[in-house]
Amino acid sequence: MTEPLRSGSVIGILGGGQLGRMLSVAASRLGYRTHIYEPGAAPAADVSVALTQARYDDLDALRAFAEACDVITYEFENIPAEALDILSETTPLYPGRRALEVSQDRLTEKRFLAELGLATAAFAAIDGPDDLEAALAATGLPAILKTRRFGYDGKGQARVTDPGGAAEALSMLEGAPAIAEGLVDFSREISVIAARGRDGSVAAYDPGENVHVDGILATTTVPAAIPAALRTDAVLIASRILNALDYVGVLGVELFVTPGGLIVNEIAPRVHNSGHWTQAGCAVDQFEQHIRAITGWPLGDGTRHADVVMENLIGADVNRAPALASERGVQVHIYGKSETRAGRKMGHVNRVTGPAR
Amino acid sequence: MTEPLRSGSVIGILGGGQLGRMLSVAASRLGYRTHIYEPGAAPAADVSVALTQARYDDLDALRAFAEACDVITYEFENIPAEALDILSETTPLYPGRRALEVSQDRLTEKRFLAELGLATAAFAAIDGPDDLEAALAATGLPAILKTRRFGYDGKGQARVTDPGGAAEALSMLEGAPAIAEGLVDFSREISVIAARGRDGSVAAYDPGENVHVDGILATTTVPAAIPAALRTDAVLIASRILNALDYVGVLGVELFVTPGGLIVNEIAPRVHNSGHWTQAGCAVDQFEQHIRAITGWPLGDGTRHADVVMENLIGADVNRAPALASERGVQVHIYGKSETRAGRKMGHVNRVTGPAR
Repeated sequence: MTEPLRSGSVIGILGGGQLGRMLSVAASRLGYRTHIYEPGAAPAADVSVALTQARYDDLDALRAFAEACDVITYEFENIPAEALDILSETTPLYPGRRALEVSQDRLTEKRFLAELGLATAAFAAIDGPDDLEAALAATGLPAILKTRRFGYDGKGQARVTDPGGAAEALSMLEGAPAIAEGLVDFSREISVIAARGRDGSVAAYDPGENVHVDGILATTTVPAAIPAALRTDAVLIASRILNALDYVGVLGVELFVTPGGLIVNEIAPRVHNSGHWTQAGCAVDQFEQHIRAITGWPLGDGTRHADVVMENLIGADVNRAPALASERGVQVHIYGKSETRAGRKMGHVNRVTGPAR
Repeated sequence: MTEPLRSGSVIGILGGGQLGRMLSVAASRLGYRTHIYEPGAAPAADVSVALTQARYDDLDALRAFAEACDVITYEFENIPAEALDILSETTPLYPGRRALEVSQDRLTEKRFLAELGLATAAFAAIDGPDDLEAALAATGLPAILKTRRFGYDGKGQARVTDPGGAAEALSMLEGAPAIAEGLVDFSREISVIAARGRDGSVAAYDPGENVHVDGILATTTVPAAIPAALRTDAVLIASRILNALDYVGVLGVELFVTPGGLIVNEIAPRVHNSGHWTQAGCAVDQFEQHIRAITGWPLGDGTRHADVVMENLIGADVNRAPALASERGVQVHIYGKSETRAGRKMGHVNRVTGPAR
């Protein structure tokens, strides 16, 4: 076994939101310090030793940041390629470039998954209005048009139910390169959070069952109410993706459960909202697992010792936190954002519903 | 229910060691920021927004610190009374003055416990050599001489096995006011970590069983191998102490298991090393429980959902951490101290041994 990065080293984190905040906390548990790079408000900076407040195209700031860090990671995938070039000249960056390229673009991602032999929704590229008819013929109707890049929490999407509405739907994406996706007839949405170490070892958590409301994750429940064979399939799919990308760190894979088996919805090259339950259900949570992976610690084994329901606190939901906190087995996480806004993730609660079944 | 302290508020923590570090992390989970006050090295500052590096008799620094904080707490009990006066003029301080006065002085503590009707070791005050004979007659032999103040991890103690060695033992305490304690014939050492909220509510964790080596805690195991009746007794003892002190925050109570029942060894008005297992065994760990108590959140219920063995990493033990991290159910905590020294607490591991029995 090689030695992990030495205690006291500085982990750079691109992005200063709640994921960066929880990564910083996990880093501290392993004896590390963190440096946050964030152009906007940075609640993660409350638990880090340094904050670089600069844009992702500020090359000087990026260079100085990279020089101040021993290893760099990120809490979100929309980092410009130029920034990655600058950073990785100086300092190791995990997960690597290929994972970001694949996950930044929905078309690249779908093609990557299809080449791995994994099932996805039917899809087709749309570079402009002329591609619409052929694309929708490939996906069938209804379909969803999505921007290839920069979408999250249901943003950058428009639904097409009949051919006459296609042009208008596309116009809502404001000319951005797009993809059409066929609808998947699924019974449940699940996700699997898995990690791969620098040494190629892989560890996965039990799949969680997700409920989305208005395009935003509302709850994740473990164990998911699916047969054991599908749990195994989910973990095998995640492992195949991790290995194909020569990945280092934690990856989230969203899957649809269909009568024909699992279909991959999307992947996120980072810790994932649907993995927050691990904070209450596992000895090593997804944040520590990610820090272990990128710093060369052995991965934790991912065993779940409790059943958990994670509930996001969106917007004014956060005002319910004190009442929730008094309930049995409830662990509260408040992200320290200065302003409560509708649709904004303000915190979450993990409710331990019992020892692991 | 009253509202908790608002998100983004600053919690001042006196002491910047590992307990302050883990308190800071817990504060961040509830949306708070922390400000550390520490004269020496401060690993807690890695996860706080501010550090005041000053002595506890620097009145100006204390005043400025108090003004910068919305509430103040501490990670160790040896804070001078003058410092407490200055701080509490400006800012609420929890746990309160009385808890500190009682626990700072072994004689005051023993008298307080005896007045509550709780069993303790036989004890007697020793203000000087002239008191030795009467004190040892009261405690019997062998006895342990301890300084009344500033002892920890077995420091400031000397054992007396025969009357002829008493004077020499006392001289090892270098003239400090002392106390003689009779030896207790115990089968096990346990401790109970309990909390009391601002509203007077009390919550306790399951007692843990402790093994000390060379006067330093080596392991804590939950559940403790004691009858259910003793577990209840331990919690009742802790509750009585919390209420008598009108306490706010987490308290650690060390107890001896004897044929005649439980005997209180000592109390610590703070989060306690023997409560670290709660990080892996409970939805709300002792650090979050303490932050909840002092900021007016409802207390967590303390239910244990996993069996855990906590092991301290003392001195060079910390080099074993990467190997331990690869074992099943092991959660690693490294304190980020810059120098490894013999006898120094460098970290700990929590090993989940299974769902709660």
